[in-house]
Amino acid sequence: MTSHSLAELAEKLFCAVISDCLDQAGIWKQAFPPRIRPLDEGLVMVGRARTALYMDVYAETPGENPYELEIQLIDSLKPGEIPVFACGATGRVAPWGELLSTASKYRGAAGAVMDGCVRDIKAIRAMKFPVFHGGIAPLDSKGRGTVKALDVPVECAGVAVSPGDLVFGDADGIVVIPKDREDEVLKLAFKKISGEKNTLRDLQAGESLGSVFAKYGIL
Amino acid sequence: MTSHSLAELAEKLFCAVISDCLDQAGIWKQAFPPRIRPLDEGLVMVGRARTALYMDVYAETPGENPYELEIQLIDSLKPGEIPVFACGATGRVAPWGELLSTASKYRGAAGAVMDGCVRDIKAIRAMKFPVFHGGIAPLDSKGRGTVKALDVPVECAGVAVSPGDLVFGDADGIVVIPKDREDEVLKLAFKKISGEKNTLRDLQAGESLGSVFAKYGIL
Amino acid sequence: MTSHSLAELAEKLFCAVISDCLDQAGIWKQAFPPRIRPLDEGLVMVGRARTALYMDVYAETPGENPYELEIQLIDSLKPGEIPVFACGATGRVAPWGELLSTASKYRGAAGAVMDGCVRDIKAIRAMKFPVFHGGIAPLDSKGRGTVKALDVPVECAGVAVSPGDLVFGDADGIVVIPKDREDEVLKLAFKKISGEKNTLRDLQAGESLGSVFAKYGIL
Amino acid sequence: MTSHSLAELAEKLFCAVISDCLDQAGIWKQAFPPRIRPLDEGLVMVGRARTALYMDVYAETPGENPYELEIQLIDSLKPGEIPVFACGATGRVAPWGELLSTASKYRGAAGAVMDGCVRDIKAIRAMKFPVFHGGIAPLDSKGRGTVKALDVPVECAGVAVSPGDLVFGDADGIVVIPKDREDEVLKLAFKKISGEKNTLRDLQAGESLGSVFAKYGIL
Amino acid sequence: MTSHSLAELAEKLFCAVISDCLDQAGIWKQAFPPRIRPLDEGLVMVGRARTALYMDVYAETPGENPYELEIQLIDSLKPGEIPVFACGATGRVAPWGELLSTASKYRGAAGAVMDGCVRDIKAIRAMKFPVFHGGIAPLDSKGRGTVKALDVPVECAGVAVSPGDLVFGDADGIVVIPKDREDEVLKLAFKKISGEKNTLRDLQAGESLGSVFAKYGIL
Amino acid sequence: MTSHSLAELAEKLFCAVISDCLDQAGIWKQAFPPRIRPLDEGLVMVGRARTALYMDVYAETPGENPYELEIQLIDSLKPGEIPVFACGATGRVAPWGELLSTASKYRGAAGAVMDGCVRDIKAIRAMKFPVFHGGIAPLDSKGRGTVKALDVPVECAGVAVSPGDLVFGDADGIVVIPKDREDEVLKLAFKKISGEKNTLRDLQAGESLGSVFAKYGIL
Repeated sequence: MTSHSLAELAEKLFCAVISDCLDQAGIWKQAFPPRIRPLDEGLVMVGRARTALYMDVYAETPGENPYELEIQLIDSLKPGEIPVFACGATGRVAPWGELLSTASKYRGAAGAVMDGCVRDIKAIRAMKFPVFHGGIAPLDSKGRGTVKALDVPVECAGVAVSPGDLVFGDADGIVVIPKDREDEVLKLAFKKISGEKNTLRDLQAGESLGSVFAKYGIL
Repeated sequence: MTSHSLAELAEKLFCAVISDCLDQAGIWKQAFPPRIRPLDEGLVMVGRARTALYMDVYAETPGENPYELEIQLIDSLKPGEIPVFACGATGRVAPWGELLSTASKYRGAAGAVMDGCVRDIKAIRAMKFPVFHGGIAPLDSKGRGTVKALDVPVECAGVAVSPGDLVFGDADGIVVIPKDREDEVLKLAFKKISGEKNTLRDLQAGESLGSVFAKYGIL
Repeated sequence: MTSHSLAELAEKLFCAVISDCLDQAGIWKQAFPPRIRPLDEGLVMVGRARTALYMDVYAETPGENPYELEIQLIDSLKPGEIPVFACGATGRVAPWGELLSTASKYRGAAGAVMDGCVRDIKAIRAMKFPVFHGGIAPLDSKGRGTVKALDVPVECAGVAVSPGDLVFGDADGIVVIPKDREDEVLKLAFKKISGEKNTLRDLQAGESLGSVFAKYGIL
Repeated sequence: MTSHSLAELAEKLFCAVISDCLDQAGIWKQAFPPRIRPLDEGLVMVGRARTALYMDVYAETPGENPYELEIQLIDSLKPGEIPVFACGATGRVAPWGELLSTASKYRGAAGAVMDGCVRDIKAIRAMKFPVFHGGIAPLDSKGRGTVKALDVPVECAGVAVSPGDLVFGDADGIVVIPKDREDEVLKLAFKKISGEKNTLRDLQAGESLGSVFAKYGIL
Repeated sequence: MTSHSLAELAEKLFCAVISDCLDQAGIWKQAFPPRIRPLDEGLVMVGRARTALYMDVYAETPGENPYELEIQLIDSLKPGEIPVFACGATGRVAPWGELLSTASKYRGAAGAVMDGCVRDIKAIRAMKFPVFHGGIAPLDSKGRGTVKALDVPVECAGVAVSPGDLVFGDADGIVVIPKDREDEVLKLAFKKISGEKNTLRDLQAGESLGSVFAKYGIL
Repeated sequence: MTSHSLAELAEKLFCAVISDCLDQAGIWKQAFPPRIRPLDEGLVMVGRARTALYMDVYAETPGENPYELEIQLIDSLKPGEIPVFACGATGRVAPWGELLSTASKYRGAAGAVMDGCVRDIKAIRAMKFPVFHGGIAPLDSKGRGTVKALDVPVECAGVAVSPGDLVFGDADGIVVIPKDREDEVLKLAFKKISGEKNTLRDLQAGESLGSVFAKYGIL
């Protein structure tokens, strides 16, 4: 695991460069698809995944607390962690809202990611807590979906996420670095960002793409 | 029908709490899916549905006014009403734009809802008229779709809407309360909003989700 | 080809009116679907199409520059041109970002259109360069897609675009006027915009849609 | 519950007439969509639903039997029952194959229904056991999905199915009669089948649809 | 319009060759997509389109005959005609079944085409009447969809069909030749079928594709 | 690479057991989705992949042979090889028909796989050549798609296929074993088939699933 602090990573790196370096390392499918968007494009999120796996249900089960594992996950969050909710393909639930945001933020969570929906979006934006979601809708999970496993490997919006994986989110989307490839990918990323600055400077000076690409090999 | 005024409902309630109370009343499918979005997330809309049912067409019919029923609906709007346009699954038309917004607003309409597209979005935003739509595109309905029935039961984006149903829209989406369940759902909603305030306050104070949920039973 | 300058067209016309006039001329399928959106709804784009046709790939080809034709297109852009990237139905690549925007803007390009994804969105917004895209995601094209033909007829998001076609983009979407119908459609558009102003004025004065439509025949 | 035996229902009624009578009784959404097909169009299935609800998983859980509830359901089947597997929207698993068919048939099950996939199709066809499925594919459920609840209300391919509901399947598809409306719907169905025979006879004799519909009111 | 009889066209031509010749004539979008399939792959259908345009409805209209135009179309069929039902994108109705097949066959119809569903499939197959459909399901149109226009231009499964157009259907699918291009396309087709026979014969004799294509220019 | 002959593999193994053993080896995504079906469910196909990668085009390129690489692939087929055509997500082309089947069969190809469409299906079925396809439609590839690379890694219907990979197809679908894991997976498969026979025999004798699974660990 990297020796860089999350704050340093958030300040120096960004999704697009990490996506390129995941490609460079031969890891091709760790960027979220465009249907998952940040609630607030101005926020940046870096942290470690805590996963929750949902199951679609079509009725409440008498005598059961439908939120039991969800509550357990949120109450156990540590600073810098990011709940990643794999809600399934149906898009029937909005597992996240103002209450979970409030509790997560209090515990120092770095943000939240889900392929389900989010609600209470104005309150969440007001508290500047980064939430990446699969749509906005007012549907509670009770009677529609329930968490059945915590801290297991999941696929969220088609991307494999394991507990402890490093998650980056910004206006361009989300990327997840598998824990065992973390050092390699971050090293490539820190190297790439300097090359990009030179490319940009020369393009702004009017040099052709062809000549700039020949010099730095970056596009 | 409720004795609360639309203005009071707009001030005190919101989509997410009504969605929860529809669930509580056993009415599970009255929230619009996330693909229907407000043009302006800052506006709130509460009113009663006036429905229009579209048919896809692939040519203009000589001698026919393709807008006849559409015009009839808009010209007959009363204050607090909301045109709900069920445009079908093809997404081929943008039935709404600046002209219909202008005419509807003049008659006191509370907003407009459609599963088709909207256009003239900058002008509509400028007039602060709430429009909830299924996409932004410049396609006129003439030669693509035409209203064939007014004030009949429809499904708009998969949600059943009957004339006179109470429609709520805000940044979190849209919910529709069937007229004959209105009193029951609104009563639940007014009751729930007080409980939510307590939950939020205790979470902000750092109490665990588990203990707050045990006290108020709300999440 | 029209004798109006691009600047004049951008100032006086807009997507919705051109879409209506394409319909009027019997050209029904030249408006982009709502899934293609502007990065910045405040910008207007008018120019002539330069097309690039992508092919999905699943590996890099050793010894080949995957960006070769892409670079060639951008480096050959002339003022007022608009690169139109037909990336295919898979949505697997983000062919556009800050570097291409910088190089294109320097050459006077009027904007860019793609049915693939875009990244570096905050930097692109900051430079006020109009980009119309099929989603936001950090995925580089290298190893995922590569341009295989330039300046050929393409379909971008289902719309036929040929080199030299006139492309309009604004907050309401994008329309493309086939080059050989340009004069006819623009003439209709200049005529229609005066009628619309009268319609709007009378509706704002409270006249019924029915009576205004009877007078001007516009909706 | 009906006093007719399952054998009698299978002999005298069929899906299309029951679908019409569900409509007539105001129950509109109990027919399966066309993507669910019989493995063998020559077989007819009538029985009572036993439901299983799947959850997508992305890894095996060490120390757990992933088939536990599935085994429990099959081993407890009684004659005339029909396992209905709600596998979710992802289509990632083929929960059914030769082994479950063999065990179910031995216990007298009337057939099986799933919105997931089926495999071993040649062996299943050879044993003349009716299976209605959402596709043919060789994917085992282990590590992809697991049953998390038995004999609860589910939605299978979008149709609500509760334990004990009467399920009809034939070449035209599947319909499910909710248990509490069973007598009413079956009574309508037995009545309708006589009218249909007259309509068909007169049409075969060359009478116009208009005149036959005027006589019997059936189409 | 062609001087060949429908019987001669059915005997000598087939869908694939007509599809190629439509391409050759620059008419690119007149082949139905693969989701429209024949009920019986052994039957061939050639005839002229009679179109019906459906509208989705969500309730029956009291006092109205929901089948009125449908009946009118079927009762007015002439030998060699083919009802083409444009049912829309929702797939909610099965407009066709045994009764319409019986009445249509009696009047000499050449077959039927729809992008909606079909039912009573075993009875229809038994009467050897060619039906091309968008799925098999038992859902009546009453209360779900109703014909609102006859003999108008439609799009069925995305293909433009006008009244009188020549429709070919066989195991490979359906193609529609626009009436005003009929002679040109048929002439190309009659010419192409002889070339194909030579190509096939030489390939069967083991000649390489390259050499055969060089000789006949056909693949 | 395995020392078993293709004929032996075809006789002793089948898709479902290989799919299970790929899972067991931790290779989860090598089974084709259910939308890819065999033209003839009675045929079995085992062989080694020869890949072709298509690109969507929207016009013919003057002076170019659109079939050049396709012809080159077919003419170079060796006995036991299987052309695997990756046609992309649009489903716009039917790259395969009677002529390619004839030429491929003559050269001893074991079958063909594509995520595009197939045509001339009756002739292909008559020659007993195994074709696995993404739909049936009469659309030629000329002017719609063209092969741009041979014998490169591709994704076909979402499954990664590299040149030389072992491909199995039967009524249950298609699985692809990556070449470097071939021995391991085949060894597991040969081992599993004996266990399955015991399981089946005991279930046919009426033993419970629970007890049989406890004995053999197979379901």
